[in-house]
Amino acid sequence: MRKIILSAPIITALAGLGMPASANDDLAKMGADGKQWVMPTGDYANTRYSKLKQITAQNVGKLAPVWTFSTGVLRGHEGAPLVVGDTMYVHAPFPNTVFALDLNNDGKILWKYEPKQDPNVIPVMCCDTVNRGLSYGDGKVFLHQADTTLVALDAKTGAVVWSTKNGDPSKGQTGTSAPMVIKDKVLVGISGGEFGVQCHVTAYDIKTGKQVWRGFSEGPDNELLVDPEKTTALGKPIGKDSSLKTWQGDQWKIGGGCTWGWISYDPSLDLVYYGSGNPSTWNPKQRPGDNKWSMTIWARNPDTGMAKWVYQMTPHDEWDFDGINEMILSDQTINGKARKLLTHFDRNGFGYTLDRDTGELLVAEKYDPAVNWATKVDMDKSSATYGRPLVVPQYSTEHNGEDVNTKGVCPAALGSKDEQPAAYSPDTQLFYVPTNHVCMDYEPFKVSYTAGQPYVGPTLSMFPPQGQTNMGNFIAWDGKTGKIVWSDPEQFSVWSGALATAGNVVFYGTLEGYLKAVDAKTGKELYKFKTPSGIIGNVMTYEHKGRQYVAVLSGVGGWAGIGLAAGLTKPTDGLGAVGGYAALSNYTALGGTLTVFALPQS
Amino acid sequence: MRKIILSAPIITALAGLGMPASANDDLAKMGADGKQWVMPTGDYANTRYSKLKQITAQNVGKLAPVWTFSTGVLRGHEGAPLVVGDTMYVHAPFPNTVFALDLNNDGKILWKYEPKQDPNVIPVMCCDTVNRGLSYGDGKVFLHQADTTLVALDAKTGAVVWSTKNGDPSKGQTGTSAPMVIKDKVLVGISGGEFGVQCHVTAYDIKTGKQVWRGFSEGPDNELLVDPEKTTALGKPIGKDSSLKTWQGDQWKIGGGCTWGWISYDPSLDLVYYGSGNPSTWNPKQRPGDNKWSMTIWARNPDTGMAKWVYQMTPHDEWDFDGINEMILSDQTINGKARKLLTHFDRNGFGYTLDRDTGELLVAEKYDPAVNWATKVDMDKSSATYGRPLVVPQYSTEHNGEDVNTKGVCPAALGSKDEQPAAYSPDTQLFYVPTNHVCMDYEPFKVSYTAGQPYVGPTLSMFPPQGQTNMGNFIAWDGKTGKIVWSDPEQFSVWSGALATAGNVVFYGTLEGYLKAVDAKTGKELYKFKTPSGIIGNVMTYEHKGRQYVAVLSGVGGWAGIGLAAGLTKPTDGLGAVGGYAALSNYTALGGTLTVFALPQS
Repeated sequence: MRKIILSAPIITALAGLGMPASANDDLAKMGADGKQWVMPTGDYANTRYSKLKQITAQNVGKLAPVWTFSTGVLRGHEGAPLVVGDTMYVHAPFPNTVFALDLNNDGKILWKYEPKQDPNVIPVMCCDTVNRGLSYGDGKVFLHQADTTLVALDAKTGAVVWSTKNGDPSKGQTGTSAPMVIKDKVLVGISGGEFGVQCHVTAYDIKTGKQVWRGFSEGPDNELLVDPEKTTALGKPIGKDSSLKTWQGDQWKIGGGCTWGWISYDPSLDLVYYGSGNPSTWNPKQRPGDNKWSMTIWARNPDTGMAKWVYQMTPHDEWDFDGINEMILSDQTINGKARKLLTHFDRNGFGYTLDRDTGELLVAEKYDPAVNWATKVDMDKSSATYGRPLVVPQYSTEHNGEDVNTKGVCPAALGSKDEQPAAYSPDTQLFYVPTNHVCMDYEPFKVSYTAGQPYVGPTLSMFPPQGQTNMGNFIAWDGKTGKIVWSDPEQFSVWSGALATAGNVVFYGTLEGYLKAVDAKTGKELYKFKTPSGIIGNVMTYEHKGRQYVAVLSGVGGWAGIGLAAGLTKPTDGLGAVGGYAALSNYTALGGTLTVFALPQS
Repeated sequence: MRKIILSAPIITALAGLGMPASANDDLAKMGADGKQWVMPTGDYANTRYSKLKQITAQNVGKLAPVWTFSTGVLRGHEGAPLVVGDTMYVHAPFPNTVFALDLNNDGKILWKYEPKQDPNVIPVMCCDTVNRGLSYGDGKVFLHQADTTLVALDAKTGAVVWSTKNGDPSKGQTGTSAPMVIKDKVLVGISGGEFGVQCHVTAYDIKTGKQVWRGFSEGPDNELLVDPEKTTALGKPIGKDSSLKTWQGDQWKIGGGCTWGWISYDPSLDLVYYGSGNPSTWNPKQRPGDNKWSMTIWARNPDTGMAKWVYQMTPHDEWDFDGINEMILSDQTINGKARKLLTHFDRNGFGYTLDRDTGELLVAEKYDPAVNWATKVDMDKSSATYGRPLVVPQYSTEHNGEDVNTKGVCPAALGSKDEQPAAYSPDTQLFYVPTNHVCMDYEPFKVSYTAGQPYVGPTLSMFPPQGQTNMGNFIAWDGKTGKIVWSDPEQFSVWSGALATAGNVVFYGTLEGYLKAVDAKTGKELYKFKTPSGIIGNVMTYEHKGRQYVAVLSGVGGWAGIGLAAGLTKPTDGLGAVGGYAALSNYTALGGTLTVFALPQS
């Protein structure tokens, strides 16, 4: 089973939410007016909303490319470039070339950084050789290489300022996530859930690269960085050995819970948020218990790493429903009460809205009608199963057991949504969510652990829900009520990140290669352009010399594009991970290209 | 020494010249109105002129990409796609993938052909893994693979109809040129001048792939396909053993004269035209004599291969001035007399105009003022050196001898122009020529021949002419007088093919990656767009559903881009072949992309 493992500490500026000053004001201020794109997530809140509004629902039909740039790398291009001042920073999949491009000169190369990496890291990258982007801060650009080297480059020259090893590829630890700058630290996660890695988020000193703290997803309390009395789950202290109690023996030491998604940050609460991934192995019979704190939303103090609260979405995962998807921070009013919200579209198919201060669960609803593995999330606070999904035995691979093919589970292992981030517009108070509309057959089998070798377990088959042909939808979601407002069907999963703008336009890309612009209120398609390859990158926007630009990396690959990326052409290849995406080869071929769009100048 | 070896039999429809009907009327007719682009050269005459004129000098500034397509292949993308009906046929460098793209659906892939080739052919490709394109005819698409396989594909399905081997890569024979359909035959040349191949052009039956004739560039008369009495050179019969007499011993058997350029065709005279390349080795001391008929323009009967006339431009080459560049056929009036002309911009820096019926030499003038290796071509018909360049001893590597560094020869080995084809507009009666403005130091040394091993000889250093910084010019040339009409300087060699149109616009690409449109009369730049990678492909145009499109492959590489393509970063790499092009890495990276442009629809 191949799957995309993202693990990016990424943090978010709550631009416009009236947060008080913090040590990291600079970065938030730089991004506040939308002219620069200084974080891989756009802002600390992970809204991927821009205040720019030259491009509107009325004029976006006239959009056209104005310059383009090939990265010289094939395979999957996830993430988005940064724009700082007159410079755009573009990253690439392995070998993780970084380019500084001159915005005053159609992307002339100011400098290039080409890491020397052992290609033996490629076989331990579960789901294509992707990289989710760069961070900027303190005059430096931060790259998390495939081999887990975290390197700080001088933003002006590309010279290496410092570098450090975040993990060990010989044990299956790899780097795919974008680092994230929070105050005077660089936070970064790690990938390796398919290799039995005990995963963590680590903070490094921005000046020196020295490790400040490391918080694991499972293990003893001192490794988790939790306080049994003060750290809460659903309002209650988690107690001593909250993780150890939920694993059999030492399984937690090879327990996964990887951290390859995005990181958010609320400066007013001084909390960072991210999700942990699937417990290892994928065969649930081999790891009895809730497997805490895999599949969990974490709220941590960025200076100490200490967790304030946790919420486990999928206890004892049976389907690879990684919890790593981004946490989007917004301030909205629910039932007449102004709330500081965290909204999260989980791989398990539920869209969660929580109070981000306390971790209180407010809403949990299916954001794809096909989701069938659980009837609902129990919202009854008095119930013993409060906050837990109510699993349907027919679709329980634990219940059905090893070597039994559990058929027709929706969503498939790649989730109703994977790492490709959603956007949120404060104008419409809607979330714009790229989704998968895919189901699976899942047959777990017993596997044994060898360091650096795949530690997975099931065979998979993936396909659209019965009687349907579209494998994806791009939806607008009301996080206050947990309802789909509109839904645009797509032939393939929408595997690109969305962008919302003050121009009432929302952008996303498709696996066939189209950049699309839709009306934020109605979802009506306003513009599309076929970029050179399938899009699994995230759309971003910036302003330069008074003109608004929209940019996106194309370059098909990632989990959905692994067939093309790795030369697997049959649906059954990759133990079934290729699935319905085999037809992608009728639309596009590999190749990494940045396309920069603007309105014509009259 | 690396160099680009192109060898494409390509033929030309003398569209609009009122030629009488021929067996190949169909293909010429299909291309006559400019709506389709059915030959790799645009037309039999190799004018690369289109009657389309929706895009004009007045409106071209509004041009913008409308769709794009990545080939999934890195390294140099030479040539241009074909358009036949609603289908575009796109080729790629090794592994020579062919795509049939649906013009009704933004380039959706209708079928794809992926040859299985032994990668051991790559080291015997002298100058990047380029391929110069496809031909169409009789419902089939013809591909000349790197391994010299000539394959006929069903144009509707991509199924292989027939395939044949044109050469043997184990002896250094490779395929880089586009095949060319003439009447009921497919003509194709061969590459390998740096491996001591005795090169040839071969005609295959379009229905079966069976060889009809093969004409070598050097050897006995029966291999040359010449008639000692009827085949002429500068108006006189060439006589018996015209080639053998000009080689020492059996050197002709490893004598080069390769045929990797374009082929033209005049249906009214029923003659095909092409040039032969450098004699092997590059060390002139090892091959005394004129080395006929290397460096020669050939006029042959397409049915029998029999040569009507030949003209050797650079007898006893001392600088690798391959004669393979295209022959452009035009009808113009010189000194009050209507002439059937053939115009050829040779690597040696002279622009030649000949009578294409008789081979009479009419004009031979330098098309780059930097050219210094010869004072002129002797035009005195009474002279013993009539038609020969008058070599300057200072720049004669033969004169200076082995192991002596001959300094400051202009042009460099890659010529004042290489395979990148010029265009001709009957409206302006001007030729539009992509040129190199590069000089060299050249030090020949003794080499020995081993089949399949490089057989070259000198070390090179390449640089712009003294005191200048631009390595290229895009020029307009009057072939009647041999004068430059205007010249647009470019930082790097112009390594893309030109397109002339009835809209008074001429297009070309740059190594930095710009597609440029200039005024055909003045050379004034009207539009530029930075494509994803450096352009060494040829610009083409077509009309679909009433709208004119312009398309070009980008993807830096070829000889000028070999540094980027093969990962050579220092000017001294590749025995000096990288030269001044090392700076290209400041502008662009690898990656093959088709960009299709049009005017906005109002």
